[in-house]
Amino acid sequence: MVQGVHFRTPPFTLEDVGHKALAVNLSDLAAMGAAPRWFVCAVAMPRSFGAREVQRLARGMSALARRARIALLGGNFSSSGDGGLSITITAAGEAARPLLRSGGERGDLLYVSGTLGDARLGLAPRALPSAVRRQRRPEPRLRLGLLAARHARAAIDLSDGLAQDAGHLCRASGVGAEIEVDRLPLSAALLGARRARKAAAAFALQGGEDYELLLAVPPARAAAFERACARAGERVTRIGRLGGRRLRFLQGSRLLDLPPPGFDHFRGKVNPRAAEQARQRI
Amino acid sequence: MVQGVHFRTPPFTLEDVGHKALAVNLSDLAAMGAAPRWFVCAVAMPRSFGAREVQRLARGMSALARRARIALLGGNFSSSGDGGLSITITAAGEAARPLLRSGGERGDLLYVSGTLGDARLGLAPRALPSAVRRQRRPEPRLRLGLLAARHARAAIDLSDGLAQDAGHLCRASGVGAEIEVDRLPLSAALLGARRARKAAAAFALQGGEDYELLLAVPPARAAAFERACARAGERVTRIGRLGGRRLRFLQGSRLLDLPPPGFDHFRGKVNPRAAEQARQRI
Repeated sequence: MVQGVHFRTPPFTLEDVGHKALAVNLSDLAAMGAAPRWFVCAVAMPRSFGAREVQRLARGMSALARRARIALLGGNFSSSGDGGLSITITAAGEAARPLLRSGGERGDLLYVSGTLGDARLGLAPRALPSAVRRQRRPEPRLRLGLLAARHARAAIDLSDGLAQDAGHLCRASGVGAEIEVDRLPLSAALLGARRARKAAAAFALQGGEDYELLLAVPPARAAAFERACARAGERVTRIGRLGGRRLRFLQGSRLLDLPPPGFDHFRGKVNPRAAEQARQRI
Repeated sequence: MVQGVHFRTPPFTLEDVGHKALAVNLSDLAAMGAAPRWFVCAVAMPRSFGAREVQRLARGMSALARRARIALLGGNFSSSGDGGLSITITAAGEAARPLLRSGGERGDLLYVSGTLGDARLGLAPRALPSAVRRQRRPEPRLRLGLLAARHARAAIDLSDGLAQDAGHLCRASGVGAEIEVDRLPLSAALLGARRARKAAAAFALQGGEDYELLLAVPPARAAAFERACARAGERVTRIGRLGGRRLRFLQGSRLLDLPPPGFDHFRGKVNPRAAEQARQRI
């Protein structure tokens, strides 16, 4: 998480930064149905940092670490020279049968947790505190991930926005999907925001950073999965199913034509092929 | 490894940066007597980066990774915004009985591998290619670390300079040491460099970034350890022994009075107590 790219201070407090840096990593563990075990953390600090700044960062991070029962094993402090604050975390979890993006099969039902679009709403001017909290203090869905590991066949966490992350799951699973946009779970905050009402669907599909889970559940497991979620107090909503060759978003019977969705660090900066070639090369 | 703090390009090539980012992590594994297993790598890239830059970075890194038989499991690419290039690596190895800094005991003999001070010499103007190579392409002492795990009681790799890193080992082991400066292994390049001749001892003690190993070996194991090193072609030099309450550097019978040694990211930038408190807090 890089200052000026993933967050700005303000509006983020250093406690927010510490929390979110760990939360986004725990969210990846949640999506694999893994129990958090340990993490290491490297911090590159600007010259202006002193004891107080570091302690505020640590406070946000350690509160979440305790709740998630994950241990900090080590890490590194360094100066960032002329750069800003930057935090890199490697987190490890354990799962008897890890959920992957690639496990989805034709016919699986698609569920999403919580509500979508709130984190994007939290970036808007005069956003409600609940939306601001979703942006700055995302809660990794660890309990749901563990539960889903017993029912789902594939999962991904929504960091880049449903449209883009559903695309990742579909590509990895080698199957298309139909998602019914009118089924997307939207919060009262998002529906009630005057400026955002028209943008609600766009926020939910492309806003990013919700850190909810998208789960592919075989039809035969759907009832048991929904009952288990209800018992555990985990909100999930069925929004579509895997099938076909392409990922399609339907509003009623109308096919939405989405622009290249979500957040791409390299759009207009690095040739997208550069990043892909680098991934393959390393 | 942060641009402008740990390296500058030029003189570093991107291949150098890729190599060194992995090498300094492998050096930590070597110091624990561990066999490299896997690493993850996060890269934050400036706007100027394209496919060619990323591939050069990857080339330097993957050549070393193959030689060290360590697998890249995953990682992250992101923009660094207005910042420079920054690389964060988490590397894991396996050891039946890991060597620690804290295992040293009174009477243990201190050995150091290779030669000291060359990496610092490699930063000097018109330095010999061999010294430049030591600065930009350090070779982690993995084979020696595996060998030492069968004989030594404690180890540390020399990243901050012998004076500072020997201090780390002494503090962790709860014992002082005497190191004979005239025994320090110096390369012909360092002894022959006109400008550096006077500075040779200072470079060896405080230059940093040599990524050699400092090993504490019980006297009863010393002969076997030296034989094993000779058989394996690993150069080691006995430079002193653990004992007493303080770490002392002797030149003949004269006690050297070293200024606060080695490289400290936070000297004159962050209150040193800030970093220490942060370490304890997280």
